[in-house]
Amino acid sequence: MAVVKMKREMRKKIDLGAKIAPYPMPVVLIGANVNGKANFLTAAWFTMATYNPPKVAVALNKAHYTNQGIRENKTFSVCIPSMGMLEATDYCGLVSGSKVDKSGVFDFFYGKLKTAPMITGFPVNVECILDKVVDNGSHEMFIGEVMSTYTEEKYLTDGVVDFKKTKPFILSMNDRQYHALSKPKARAWSAGKNYKP
Amino acid sequence: MAVVKMKREMRKKIDLGAKIAPYPMPVVLIGANVNGKANFLTAAWFTMATYNPPKVAVALNKAHYTNQGIRENKTFSVCIPSMGMLEATDYCGLVSGSKVDKSGVFDFFYGKLKTAPMITGFPVNVECILDKVVDNGSHEMFIGEVMSTYTEEKYLTDGVVDFKKTKPFILSMNDRQYHALSKPKARAWSAGKNYKP
Repeated sequence: MAVVKMKREMRKKIDLGAKIAPYPMPVVLIGANVNGKANFLTAAWFTMATYNPPKVAVALNKAHYTNQGIRENKTFSVCIPSMGMLEATDYCGLVSGSKVDKSGVFDFFYGKLKTAPMITGFPVNVECILDKVVDNGSHEMFIGEVMSTYTEEKYLTDGVVDFKKTKPFILSMNDRQYHALSKPKARAWSAGKNYKP
Repeated sequence: MAVVKMKREMRKKIDLGAKIAPYPMPVVLIGANVNGKANFLTAAWFTMATYNPPKVAVALNKAHYTNQGIRENKTFSVCIPSMGMLEATDYCGLVSGSKVDKSGVFDFFYGKLKTAPMITGFPVNVECILDKVVDNGSHEMFIGEVMSTYTEEKYLTDGVVDFKKTKPFILSMNDRQYHALSKPKARAWSAGKNYKP
């Protein structure tokens, strides 16, 4: 019976082929000085890369204007927006810094690295030194070591950044939709403790 | 006045230091055959790496049992769970395949690569060939080329995977919480069209 059930289940599977993986993508802006001016590019192919030392990774199409600036200064920032900054964030993905000067879109500041612009009005900004660039085809991956994490007291609960306060948002790339996050639903590294396979 | 306002804004900024970036992380299971048995590891440091050809990247601590299997077979899978599979997903992050046989946690299947186990009950499974491994310190990044994307008709709307149906979830690593996604809030590559900086 189990085999029959499994065969029935398998018949439902369809293969969409070699595609962009349909997972929920975090929306960030990548900040860099390009030709001496602050520039911000919307990106969603972003992840932590390692814990010790903390490094992040962002995959950018090789055609982007931003890439030149990251190479030039060996620094970049990861600016994590709130839902309330969605329009400005989306805008930075619609226009290229090679055609439009995006240095006026946001009030911005520099941290200790001096060349990675960060957005004053965003709840979180992460300042990075370029560690390496990995060529993957149409996109290259910039891996950067985290130097600083700028936020404000009002975004913290018990000393850590609280998504209920920072209100980050998510891209569904396949159907081109932005989603907010729900309130917390379960504890991580805990919800599965009593799970019996 | 503008300078005074900006100085006031900047005084609110605090630097949390070199930390894990507080962004919303997608929760996936990485499937691999290790020592001839299917194994599944919970991971959240995951992103698309490139579009052409489509490749994904996942950063795993070097100590993980799964890493051996990916190296051995040069294949792995990315299994994207629904909110309803949260307990089983969390469980796979609490126990190591080196101590517990996780091949019985899920019904699973193999695709064309034959050695990347995928979870029958999950809405989306992505089958990958290992492209390269990038050493970043405590973690190594496995970059894999997407071969297939398995789903079911019931998870699609107009031919693409619909998060309202697959119900993926998000990890907030700092405060160890899982979040669901809201309904779509705005259109991507569209919401910023009328934005005036």
